[in-house]
Amino acid sequence: MPKSKSRLAIVPLGGVGEIGKNMTLYWYGNDMIVVDAGLKFPEEEMLGVDIVIPDITFLVENKEKVRGIFVTHGHEDHIGGLPYILKTLNVPVYGTRLTLGLIENKLKEHNLLDTVKMHTIGDNQQIQAGVFSVEYFYVNHSIPDTVGFAIHTPEGLVVHTGDFKFDQTPVDGRQADLQKLAGYGSQGVLALVADSTNAERPGFTPSEKSVGKTIDHLVAQAPGRIILSTFASNIHRVQQVITAAERYGRKVAIVGRSMVNNIQTSIQLGYLNVLPSTLIDVDEIGRMDPDKVLILSTGSQGEPMSALTRMARSAHRKVEIMPGDTVILASHPIPGNEKFISRTIDQLFKAGANVIYQGVHVSGHGSQEELKLMINLTRPKYFLPVHGEFRMQRTHANLAIDLGVDPDNIFITELGDVVEFEGDRARFGGKVPAGTVMIDGLGVGDVGNIVLRDRKLLSQDGILVVVVTLSKTSGTILSGPDIISRGFVYVRESEALLDEATKLVESTLVRMVSDNISEWSSLKTAVRDTLGRYLYEQTRRRPMILPIIMEA
Amino acid sequence: MPKSKSRLAIVPLGGVGEIGKNMTLYWYGNDMIVVDAGLKFPEEEMLGVDIVIPDITFLVENKEKVRGIFVTHGHEDHIGGLPYILKTLNVPVYGTRLTLGLIENKLKEHNLLDTVKMHTIGDNQQIQAGVFSVEYFYVNHSIPDTVGFAIHTPEGLVVHTGDFKFDQTPVDGRQADLQKLAGYGSQGVLALVADSTNAERPGFTPSEKSVGKTIDHLVAQAPGRIILSTFASNIHRVQQVITAAERYGRKVAIVGRSMVNNIQTSIQLGYLNVLPSTLIDVDEIGRMDPDKVLILSTGSQGEPMSALTRMARSAHRKVEIMPGDTVILASHPIPGNEKFISRTIDQLFKAGANVIYQGVHVSGHGSQEELKLMINLTRPKYFLPVHGEFRMQRTHANLAIDLGVDPDNIFITELGDVVEFEGDRARFGGKVPAGTVMIDGLGVGDVGNIVLRDRKLLSQDGILVVVVTLSKTSGTILSGPDIISRGFVYVRESEALLDEATKLVESTLVRMVSDNISEWSSLKTAVRDTLGRYLYEQTRRRPMILPIIMEA
Repeated sequence: MPKSKSRLAIVPLGGVGEIGKNMTLYWYGNDMIVVDAGLKFPEEEMLGVDIVIPDITFLVENKEKVRGIFVTHGHEDHIGGLPYILKTLNVPVYGTRLTLGLIENKLKEHNLLDTVKMHTIGDNQQIQAGVFSVEYFYVNHSIPDTVGFAIHTPEGLVVHTGDFKFDQTPVDGRQADLQKLAGYGSQGVLALVADSTNAERPGFTPSEKSVGKTIDHLVAQAPGRIILSTFASNIHRVQQVITAAERYGRKVAIVGRSMVNNIQTSIQLGYLNVLPSTLIDVDEIGRMDPDKVLILSTGSQGEPMSALTRMARSAHRKVEIMPGDTVILASHPIPGNEKFISRTIDQLFKAGANVIYQGVHVSGHGSQEELKLMINLTRPKYFLPVHGEFRMQRTHANLAIDLGVDPDNIFITELGDVVEFEGDRARFGGKVPAGTVMIDGLGVGDVGNIVLRDRKLLSQDGILVVVVTLSKTSGTILSGPDIISRGFVYVRESEALLDEATKLVESTLVRMVSDNISEWSSLKTAVRDTLGRYLYEQTRRRPMILPIIMEA
Repeated sequence: MPKSKSRLAIVPLGGVGEIGKNMTLYWYGNDMIVVDAGLKFPEEEMLGVDIVIPDITFLVENKEKVRGIFVTHGHEDHIGGLPYILKTLNVPVYGTRLTLGLIENKLKEHNLLDTVKMHTIGDNQQIQAGVFSVEYFYVNHSIPDTVGFAIHTPEGLVVHTGDFKFDQTPVDGRQADLQKLAGYGSQGVLALVADSTNAERPGFTPSEKSVGKTIDHLVAQAPGRIILSTFASNIHRVQQVITAAERYGRKVAIVGRSMVNNIQTSIQLGYLNVLPSTLIDVDEIGRMDPDKVLILSTGSQGEPMSALTRMARSAHRKVEIMPGDTVILASHPIPGNEKFISRTIDQLFKAGANVIYQGVHVSGHGSQEELKLMINLTRPKYFLPVHGEFRMQRTHANLAIDLGVDPDNIFITELGDVVEFEGDRARFGGKVPAGTVMIDGLGVGDVGNIVLRDRKLLSQDGILVVVVTLSKTSGTILSGPDIISRGFVYVRESEALLDEATKLVESTLVRMVSDNISEWSSLKTAVRDTLGRYLYEQTRRRPMILPIIMEA
């Protein structure tokens, strides 16, 4: 366990070696602040798990030191862990207006609104949190009001970018704070902690405005109804869709809970400009000419329960796809969702729609030239590429080396790695507990490797339960063995196999009992081994075998 | 059931509405021929399933009519179903030399080599198969000796492309048979049945030679060992790797069973030119200078058991990744494999290798301009886009319409759709049985929807087995209830929950017995419902509940 009495430690608790659940700890002596508290969606092998959040054991152990959580923006991978974390670690939350508005919606759902203190950070405001003094700088991203943090520490200034791109023509006219960033560079930056998501992409990420042009073009030309799906939090894109609808005389109906919520919050807080007459209820669609309607919907990732997916399989209560409809997916598949999205597109085509699913999206993360620009603006002594899988961090590090950053001054971290800064020197200083907490239903952390291993086994070849009742006195079989199978084979087509298996278990038990072997554990092991071997020979499958021996 | 006495029927039995398991039936009167017999890899929801092949019920019902299977090339999605299908449908197989060589390897593994008749088709040879007369035309693809078929039928000429691209500078100098295809167009083509895989991609697919240039450049510059992974069947690419190794004085070691097999077969049949001194055994690597070694390996899709994946996680018996190694993935992720590949790349980077995983691949399928060229060369009256998911077939159809094909003459088929041609007219003529047969271990078709549904349930929230022994005479509980859980929760952390659940089951049974309800089905249903409701309230999970009631 590293001591950090009079030195600065930077500790990624999430978002390194992975995409999602971003969380970074800044620690000096008796003071800790945390930047972001995200969630991520489960890996394929995390069967049945709903979401994944960072392990905050170390923060809980140091509860009295934590001065607050600073949040860069309102995406799930930066705020989604908050409701779970604030339940055990009730500290103030700092952020910009829209970000806090979105967090509020979340806390309401979890009945936490009254217990959590939230503070809006003003422009150019310095927040004092223990020894740390924090101000934000504005960056561009796929949600408004996104910031990074300049964290003044006793060891020097740390620039934490959060997710960012440099959009030279942003939709809301608000460019990234180039002047502030350059100013930090002039003052001297101890360390840059920067987003690596798009480190593999050469060039510049195009401006969000280029998507607006494409959308304008599509809305101008569509002959009938338009159903457009995008990320509910991409308020800039939603703005451009609404602007195009208004320009071409279409009313807009919103479907999908998260789309409705995000748009409501954004209108209330002044982040979205909509003419009062533009929005209509989805029930009014039927009474209108198709070319006067635009439906703005969730489901751009093919999520099985989302509005668009339900429309695609004719299971939406209010909207049915018709020939003549134009469906626009203003999005890009998040890795892992490709198959869901493809299926949705196929179904939409089959229902007769014209589906446009390529070229109506730009990333919210900066590409290589923007990552270089960030490094050149801030000119850091030390560099920590974060927010990315290892290869992205490595590639980001290589970009920094190309720009002249000393390779020895670059720290490619894993979860829980402590990077210590003292007297202008930095080094790896051990590890703190960190990792992954799986949330399944109401259970936080009660699913772990053994449970997942069982689910995996069960999912591959199913289970056979073998039940037998033995006599308490003689050990002879009173009833059974009965074999019940689930997820293994069709019972009807495999009667012979299961009959043979039953006989085999019976003869095994009879033999053991006559040999005076009667410990349950031995009997169970014998059943499991004999049956497992037989079934593998016959089927090349390895179902889980659960022997249950009763006494009567 | 359609009658097809004196008309031609084209029936896709695989490869439409999907990528993979390609199979097309041509049928006239008492004669049937089949083109290709592929497999595909299971969809995500086909838990535990190994591979998937077409349902050939209809062919088996018409066994005596089937004159042969014509195979376009040696990829799994065109030949992988053969060993399973030939077991029930022993008909002659026709193909080019390399294709038959690769099929031979397969049949050997399944002990089928002696029972199956295989015929090599010569250049410009016409094969008579019932009323059909079949010749091949050469096309370019990511495996040598790929052909399409010109099928002369009593109703006219059908051109079946198989997988194809037009490579203007092919590695083996053998261009697609533009003259033959144009000749068919002059004669008059009744129908074109064409590959839709890349229908969504604009432009031309680059030549395989462009990959050779990139590989040459990388081999020239790599400072230490090179480990290059590509598709084992892409013999043209393997040739270019070997040529580059020879040019820069590197010896080549082959690892991975399929890579070894394919290279052996290709050398034997004369499809690969290798200097006798180039190939070395992998055991010799250790004694050589790193910059004199190139390891050609399987695993470009991150397959968990492949050579490269084992190297990446330091589990390969003979090759360990070292700093200074250059690892080249000359491939592109097949949809669904992205996560496996990313993990492998991350592990290779962590082991210190420089990993090059982008830009060393071109597709084997033609893009939109090549699909248009095929249509313009053959000038078909009717058009059937196949080999693709629905949106690719639809997009391919739209390309044909742009070129002037009558939309009414285009048939976008689903599995088993019969397209009938008679007297120069065509129409949908019903459906024949068709679909998907899942292979799990040794079982062919014994896994179906119920088994998969159970596996799905088990994988999400696991299973609870509830065992109780009741008295035969009084119905009172003699032992239990005992609850055994797998894949649900950590038992140690959930003792209170499981205790409570046990009490609930007990009180439910006691109440029912005292109410004189004693049918097992009612008792089981009550246990399942009561327990299910309780667990959902407490955990928001729905494990499978398996009540087992014994009598003694």
